[in-house]
Amino acid sequence: VAHEEGDLNDFRAILGNDIAIKSYREGKLPFPDGTIIARLAWNYVSSEENNKVFGRAQSFVAGSATNLQFMVKDSKKYASTGGWGFAQFNNGKPAAEAVHKTCFACHQPVKDRDFVFTRYAP
Amino acid sequence: VAHEEGDLNDFRAILGNDIAIKSYREGKLPFPDGTIIARLAWNYVSSEENNKVFGRAQSFVAGSATNLQFMVKDSKKYASTGGWGFAQFNNGKPAAEAVHKTCFACHQPVKDRDFVFTRYAP
Repeated sequence: VAHEEGDLNDFRAILGNDIAIKSYREGKLPFPDGTIIARLAWNYVSSEENNKVFGRAQSFVAGSATNLQFMVKDSKKYASTGGWGFAQFNNGKPAAEAVHKTCFACHQPVKDRDFVFTRYAP
Repeated sequence: VAHEEGDLNDFRAILGNDIAIKSYREGKLPFPDGTIIARLAWNYVSSEENNKVFGRAQSFVAGSATNLQFMVKDSKKYASTGGWGFAQFNNGKPAAEAVHKTCFACHQPVKDRDFVFTRYAP
């Protein structure tokens, strides 16, 4: 779970398949082949109905979905990008190839965590 | 997924069992007996490492867990509180009975949604 302000201003939820969760729990890196990590995101919106209950403006919830992103580990197929295949879907349709070429560069700063930003929060 | 500012200042993720998700998807109310809704929460913390990647302070992630809450539907057992049993756990231990007695009152404003704040965000 995360919130990005700035140009994104979204809420994010990060999900992993069983292989991903097992690696997270064991603290093992790199993630093994077959790992799938999904990142859902929604617009960050104020909730007037929740604010009424709390008696002040403090509540933010998930609005409409923005896009859906995946990381899939296949150390052979995606050898040139740290073993990760990156995908983005907008309204159920794959984003352009040009978009996908931008993914790996931004993940470089977390190379020591196998290019995955999300830490495990039990 | 939600963020509460003010005294709480937390991140929340809301999970449902299969019965809950089916009801959400079908837009059916009230939720049937057997519904379980879980609310996880973590402290809302700034992520310096993510900010470095974005080039500005914009990233907030889940810190340490605060508490865990559940709503369980049993229209007979919990008839006096809208059919919902409420539970809170702090560090793996059940909260005091006094804490649990405060739950239902705050859910009254969303009686028309079967006392559940969380809306379905596909």
